[in-house]
Amino acid sequence: MNTPQLTSALQGRFSPLRFDPNHQLSDADVVTVLEAARWAPSAGNAQPWSFHVRRRGEEGHDQLVEHLAASSRRWAPAASALVVNMARREVDDSGMTYSEFADYDLGQAVAHMTVQAHAMGLACRQFRAFDLEGLHDTLGVRPGWHILTMTAIGVPPRGDTTPPARERRSIVDLRTAGVSSPPHRRLQG
Amino acid sequence: MNTPQLTSALQGRFSPLRFDPNHQLSDADVVTVLEAARWAPSAGNAQPWSFHVRRRGEEGHDQLVEHLAASSRRWAPAASALVVNMARREVDDSGMTYSEFADYDLGQAVAHMTVQAHAMGLACRQFRAFDLEGLHDTLGVRPGWHILTMTAIGVPPRGDTTPPARERRSIVDLRTAGVSSPPHRRLQG
Repeated sequence: MNTPQLTSALQGRFSPLRFDPNHQLSDADVVTVLEAARWAPSAGNAQPWSFHVRRRGEEGHDQLVEHLAASSRRWAPAASALVVNMARREVDDSGMTYSEFADYDLGQAVAHMTVQAHAMGLACRQFRAFDLEGLHDTLGVRPGWHILTMTAIGVPPRGDTTPPARERRSIVDLRTAGVSSPPHRRLQG
Repeated sequence: MNTPQLTSALQGRFSPLRFDPNHQLSDADVVTVLEAARWAPSAGNAQPWSFHVRRRGEEGHDQLVEHLAASSRRWAPAASALVVNMARREVDDSGMTYSEFADYDLGQAVAHMTVQAHAMGLACRQFRAFDLEGLHDTLGVRPGWHILTMTAIGVPPRGDTTPPARERRSIVDLRTAGVSSPPHRRLQG
């Protein structure tokens, strides 16, 4: 069987290691990537996600940059925008679960945002190298909500070539890693 | 500002309430949707996901159907395939965290699979209405791995119209639900 061809929506997507510090996102760009996240599916349609967005040069962007770790501070401030990705796990401060799929659903919403960005010629890099507790306090994250990651959105610097794709496990491993049941005998792909 | 137009990769995606019981997925179809999941990004490239796939009529499909709850048994067996979505949270049985982003990353991988399926004219419905513990035992899910959801993949019955989209919160709410910081004053979208 030949290597399967992915849809152009996913083909060529990658997480840039550097961003063009001069590229700007328009208001419409920001609204459109958020709209993509908004229409992601979620368990029971709970939509357990929220996004705090600041563009480079915009009020509040510095506040996000201040909380970056040394490693991400080398590249993330150059991105056109930083997005703080939050999941609602609990109902306020009651200790009751709001959604046991909060993290999973947030991941889906961020993936939708990334796919939309890719279609618009933008690229996203998600990361966790920041002071989570400090950022939590600074933003006033509401009870029940949790910051999981940040996404840097922008374009790679002109002339930067696509970095080599990071290795992936085989598709057989993808099917067998989690279970001891063998994959179906007729289909080994 | 006008309503933003999403990329065709996301536009029109929905979770069918019924599936065509005669539609078949080819070997190549299965491999291609898995390939899409395989290339999803993950924290530290941990790829903390695994997928157990069985097509309708294939050996092992009955085993999945047996574990469906009454609610999902009404529609899920008609789908062309059922996929069990698993995340690797711990390192084997050591109690050590393998990835704190396991659920989040699995969500992204399932979203990529769904986007690929949509591009191929297929539709996916994720669900949790099944006997998780029974399925866990039957499949021999390995230590550290957790079943989160199942995905039904197929096509809606011919003549079935797209169900009305489920309501989504406003884009302003998307930006403010998690934090007490106000959205940037210039951009209310």
